[in-house]
Amino acid sequence: MLDFYYEPDNAMLSSLLERNSESNDEIRDAVLSIMDDVKRRGDDALYEYALKFDHSRLKSLFVSEDEMEDLSSQVSEELKSAIDLASNNIRAFHEAQVPKGEYCESMEGVRLWRKIVPISKPGLYVPGGTAPLFSTVLMLAIPASVAGSEDVMLATPAKEGKISPALLYAAKKAGVHRILKVGGAQAIAAFAYGTESVEKRNKIFGPGNRFVSFAKMEASRFVSIDMLAGPSEVMVLADASASALYIATDLLSQAEHGADSQAILVFIGSRAEAEKKKNEVMEEIKRLLNSLGRRGYMEESLAHSRIIAFSSIPDAMHAVNEYAPEHLIINTEHPEILLDMVRSAGSVFLGPYSPESAGDYASGTNHTLPTSGFAKSTSGVSVDSFLKKITVQEITKEGARLLSGAVMAMADAEGLSAHKEAMRVRLC
Amino acid sequence: MLDFYYEPDNAMLSSLLERNSESNDEIRDAVLSIMDDVKRRGDDALYEYALKFDHSRLKSLFVSEDEMEDLSSQVSEELKSAIDLASNNIRAFHEAQVPKGEYCESMEGVRLWRKIVPISKPGLYVPGGTAPLFSTVLMLAIPASVAGSEDVMLATPAKEGKISPALLYAAKKAGVHRILKVGGAQAIAAFAYGTESVEKRNKIFGPGNRFVSFAKMEASRFVSIDMLAGPSEVMVLADASASALYIATDLLSQAEHGADSQAILVFIGSRAEAEKKKNEVMEEIKRLLNSLGRRGYMEESLAHSRIIAFSSIPDAMHAVNEYAPEHLIINTEHPEILLDMVRSAGSVFLGPYSPESAGDYASGTNHTLPTSGFAKSTSGVSVDSFLKKITVQEITKEGARLLSGAVMAMADAEGLSAHKEAMRVRLC
Repeated sequence: MLDFYYEPDNAMLSSLLERNSESNDEIRDAVLSIMDDVKRRGDDALYEYALKFDHSRLKSLFVSEDEMEDLSSQVSEELKSAIDLASNNIRAFHEAQVPKGEYCESMEGVRLWRKIVPISKPGLYVPGGTAPLFSTVLMLAIPASVAGSEDVMLATPAKEGKISPALLYAAKKAGVHRILKVGGAQAIAAFAYGTESVEKRNKIFGPGNRFVSFAKMEASRFVSIDMLAGPSEVMVLADASASALYIATDLLSQAEHGADSQAILVFIGSRAEAEKKKNEVMEEIKRLLNSLGRRGYMEESLAHSRIIAFSSIPDAMHAVNEYAPEHLIINTEHPEILLDMVRSAGSVFLGPYSPESAGDYASGTNHTLPTSGFAKSTSGVSVDSFLKKITVQEITKEGARLLSGAVMAMADAEGLSAHKEAMRVRLC
Repeated sequence: MLDFYYEPDNAMLSSLLERNSESNDEIRDAVLSIMDDVKRRGDDALYEYALKFDHSRLKSLFVSEDEMEDLSSQVSEELKSAIDLASNNIRAFHEAQVPKGEYCESMEGVRLWRKIVPISKPGLYVPGGTAPLFSTVLMLAIPASVAGSEDVMLATPAKEGKISPALLYAAKKAGVHRILKVGGAQAIAAFAYGTESVEKRNKIFGPGNRFVSFAKMEASRFVSIDMLAGPSEVMVLADASASALYIATDLLSQAEHGADSQAILVFIGSRAEAEKKKNEVMEEIKRLLNSLGRRGYMEESLAHSRIIAFSSIPDAMHAVNEYAPEHLIINTEHPEILLDMVRSAGSVFLGPYSPESAGDYASGTNHTLPTSGFAKSTSGVSVDSFLKKITVQEITKEGARLLSGAVMAMADAEGLSAHKEAMRVRLC
């Protein structure tokens, strides 16, 4: 638990930062067979899988309005207010993200712009699993609502026919239009191919276990997906100034997600400072393990956690950027200086009072973030994820004349004579 | 050629708008075997495939500075000016796209923003094929340059060791850092896994044949890709006011790309007007086929082209949005009214003087666009494609206090006690 490495060489560092990305042919075959079945048999297959996997004997595939009203009213006032507050913050930040579009006249009479259009019919997946993740409903459905997406459908398994009231309350609050009581690869198949009662989705969003991830990978041949989500990760970047208690609770917040979650502490300081902090953090973790729930997950996950310490800031930042963590907590004396050096991370939490759990739930940022190093090349879910930008050009006769020489010379050189002709005839 | 349908019913319309999306197990196996070989043997495999597929006995995998200078100086002054003009226009439009970022204080002391960072080490693929597509170099490398991406690598096959001078000139102009003389699935494998001399890429861009597309699909498990590009498509939306000659050259521009290109004319008007226009367009096409090159491709492609006519504007726009064409030319009396009704298209060309070839080469918009209906959910390549947006939050002690109730209630309800604890300890 929290194995300690001081200034590892590059080869060692690479191996410390590696994720296990085993592929599993058994899962692949099971997923493809479920998806194929849904493609062929449609709704019938969905009813059968709901019974088989969720022990759910459904009368309808969708949550009815009555169910929605009855169940969402069962949520405690305290939790309703919490969801309302989170909702407002998430909406505020995502509204700030709405792009303006742009206009450019590249030459006289050559007018270019982008028309911004919401993606209609998104499919949002929210896992059932060990905890009812109503927070994920907010994180997917609020950006869709801010973007203005039509026909927002959410799918989640109904264990023994039931969906968590908090999840329904969050869905209502966030503007979900319909809730499909189906989970797993079968839900993703319904989204990707459509069935009698589920209209095919244009883009599929949301986390899930390895079955769901595999199904999204397969679906991505036909429809868009938000990202391929792997196990959750946090990197805590700390120095001697950081509270060991804060570090310990931040590492544990990640570890409690599941046995495959990864928590790495990158420490900046001398070997003595690093060892001292490691011991203090270990003490806090041991104490907390006795008082918190989900101890099994935390112990399994912490078994592959580690502390990697560096005396130099650039070396530490190199490790951060190479790993490209989903969540990066910077708990150091001058966090903003280190933020300037961050090149790859999903979401950054600056300073001692910004725990990951603030962003996971309520501060307003999105918690659907790239894992497995995809933060090197992708961003988390935002309003952008629910928008398309269609380029438009309107060229006048004079603009066509000004462009024609270049277009015709290039078409000639590429051997495309009809392209040239299409320009040439506009000059007459 | 140009089969005619007037107001088809919904079932018929669906079948008229269908793309053939056959998957091919032989291609899949060949691609996976090449990729696996590159993964295992690295550079050696790249040299061997260059010899085998491109008859290219390479001394180095990369274009040298001398080669770059020598060859790019061989480009004619006319073509250089054309590339320069196109380059300037593309740069102007993509510079207008650079996002500003945003800042939001969702509650007192809860500060949220996005830090925008270029994606480093992009891998750009440009096919060899039947024509040297130097225009694609501009379309991929200029957005990378505007975004500020580091280490921009382009791969293209060197047929018999040679790369087209125009392609090298365009690469230099657009700011490409290194050119890898490797094509096909082997280039994509080098990008995705890295070899001794090719550092692994963070995101892979660019069009290609079915081998390349399949390789990108496989690569997308490990690195990001821009999109899965299928055969090119145009939809021309016209009414009685449109010139049959313009329509004919626009359909042929698409058809000359390859036998699997698709060109569809959607006509708004009475049956008599539609049949008249169809006949005029056919006349022009027949005449042009005799005078233009690439007749074989055009005839094969036109064999599955069609004209679908509607008397009602909403019906016509329904067909457009259901098809979600890569390119949409609106050549009607009031194109801006129809533009308002466009929900899904890659790029729109408005009015009689905006042929697709203007945007393919030089007006400034990007020609790397979603095909196969992906325009329902994705946008073409833009500066966004080369940027990541990292969310950041900085919460003050007071902000943490204001958020804490909601975070703790939600963590409780989701059964995540360490998440709650991480917030609770910040209050002490």
